[in-house]
Amino acid sequence: MKTDKILLDHGSGGKISHHLISQLVLPHFDNPILAPLNDGAVFDLQGKKFAFSTDSYVVDPIFFPGGDIGSLAVNGTVNDLAMCGAKPLYLSVGFIIEEGFSMADFQTILASMQFAARAAGVLIVTGDTKVVQRKAADKIFINTSGLGVVSDHIHISGKNARPGDQILLSGFIADHGITILTQREGLTLESPLCSDTAPLNHLVQEMTAACGNIHTLRDPTRGGVATTLNEIAVQSGTGIKLYEAAIPIRNEVRGACELLGLDPLYIANEGKLLACVSPEDAAGLLQVVRANEFGCNAAIIGEVTADSPGQVCMETAIGGSRIVDMLAGEPLPRIC
Amino acid sequence: MKTDKILLDHGSGGKISHHLISQLVLPHFDNPILAPLNDGAVFDLQGKKFAFSTDSYVVDPIFFPGGDIGSLAVNGTVNDLAMCGAKPLYLSVGFIIEEGFSMADFQTILASMQFAARAAGVLIVTGDTKVVQRKAADKIFINTSGLGVVSDHIHISGKNARPGDQILLSGFIADHGITILTQREGLTLESPLCSDTAPLNHLVQEMTAACGNIHTLRDPTRGGVATTLNEIAVQSGTGIKLYEAAIPIRNEVRGACELLGLDPLYIANEGKLLACVSPEDAAGLLQVVRANEFGCNAAIIGEVTADSPGQVCMETAIGGSRIVDMLAGEPLPRIC
Repeated sequence: MKTDKILLDHGSGGKISHHLISQLVLPHFDNPILAPLNDGAVFDLQGKKFAFSTDSYVVDPIFFPGGDIGSLAVNGTVNDLAMCGAKPLYLSVGFIIEEGFSMADFQTILASMQFAARAAGVLIVTGDTKVVQRKAADKIFINTSGLGVVSDHIHISGKNARPGDQILLSGFIADHGITILTQREGLTLESPLCSDTAPLNHLVQEMTAACGNIHTLRDPTRGGVATTLNEIAVQSGTGIKLYEAAIPIRNEVRGACELLGLDPLYIANEGKLLACVSPEDAAGLLQVVRANEFGCNAAIIGEVTADSPGQVCMETAIGGSRIVDMLAGEPLPRIC
Repeated sequence: MKTDKILLDHGSGGKISHHLISQLVLPHFDNPILAPLNDGAVFDLQGKKFAFSTDSYVVDPIFFPGGDIGSLAVNGTVNDLAMCGAKPLYLSVGFIIEEGFSMADFQTILASMQFAARAAGVLIVTGDTKVVQRKAADKIFINTSGLGVVSDHIHISGKNARPGDQILLSGFIADHGITILTQREGLTLESPLCSDTAPLNHLVQEMTAACGNIHTLRDPTRGGVATTLNEIAVQSGTGIKLYEAAIPIRNEVRGACELLGLDPLYIANEGKLLACVSPEDAAGLLQVVRANEFGCNAAIIGEVTADSPGQVCMETAIGGSRIVDMLAGEPLPRIC
């Protein structure tokens, strides 16, 4: 898609974002550490392996059931590091604040970040605060970057998925995105929803301790499970088969999606992970994940195949089959 | 200063910023790595010493003589790491872009970042792009975070300045701030000014190679030389004496400051450093700095004293003496 302007779609995490990154950003910054395009960069330094990741948070509204922009910013970067198989250690935080923003709200966000950092076991070690004039930013944006260490024996990457791998999903999909959307639009559901924002690093630590050979880990944030699985299929040159009936989803989320005409497979999660593992490891790993508070609704939702490389195909609940493409447009701007 | 709203002053880098950080942010995030409040965090990891730093860039205008928001974002974080005595290695980049931003301008900024990264010898290894609706941000904001390694023998910190130290400044002051201001206000000067944005890491490497005992390094960005020296005085519990006549300043910058009623000591620099060293090392170090392209106008501009701890005092050019306080208000929002 050619355009001379940046569009909301360019920030969707979907197809148009990928086009922007691969056609515009990568050719400028190209280097072997950036090229794999995992959730963070992994590199050797002084004989040890490290992971380094960054994300800016522009979610609207900044406070929502289950969290706020502060906890989201901490958990998001913790999770990006965890998806590299790293133990997250240190975070930086950069605030861009609109003049006139409430000091009390800022305090609430700071407290929430510190609470989230404690829960994840990371330290916020360096920071920066910029203030811009009214209308030059919308309330508050937060960047967090993070540093973690990766054990020598861990080799987790989107490109490592291989035919036969089982695909594990750690719980219900689309909770975060649908929560933000209903808050923003002022929709009232019968059973109120909560964002799933959570730190997944302890879960990942339990997983890597139990299974020394996890091939791929990825958290399906912007663009949802569908987009993340498409990324894995492209990176690894494999096909992916999904079983619709196996995908955990809350009834109220399914209902909200039907009402709004949204496909929950494309809706952002902020406390879920996808893992690709050999079939012989899958059942054991599923047990481990289910034993963790953030994985109790985990399920095997599909498998990696040798045919249709780069494509995700879903066996539907009614026995049909359909291609699940990468997110194309931007159904939900400023979801994270 | 008590207020229930965030003000532009809170982002000035001056007194009110310090108050916000020390009264609000530090109590939440307090930990021994964050506490020293140097330009970056320095910590031991796996037996090696690292530096980690972050900065968001919101400069307006985004293109200016001598650079743009992209080169500024790379050089700024490279310099923050260098001021910790680190060799900067890897940067992350987080873009927040306003919907409708020109794709061509984005390309120019990417190219400028890559050019700056090459010049500094660092790699941009991980990134994130968010797009927000029109009027939810002003054109483009960039966060860069950086990771560097610190040699074992280097112990550079604002708290290490000690009485008797000579204060070295690497060149002309206030070029960046006055350039941005004149651009923004559409002022035309007889001799056009340029931002001094530059990577100082190679200069610092030459300095630490020549002098194993540099006590303090700091780049006087927001708040200028006056604010940075006040920070050093407070951190180290020393006094600082400045010689006004020794401070390098271009005639056209001095003229612009007089015209605009601004004190150049409070104006931001983006390619200058201040160093505190023992008197026996000062002359040799000055030679080393002057031999570098970014230090050819370096000078000794003052000394660290035992009396008046926490205070900066200037011997004026006309023989008087005056207290040089930390920046109080915000003369120039969005300078970096």
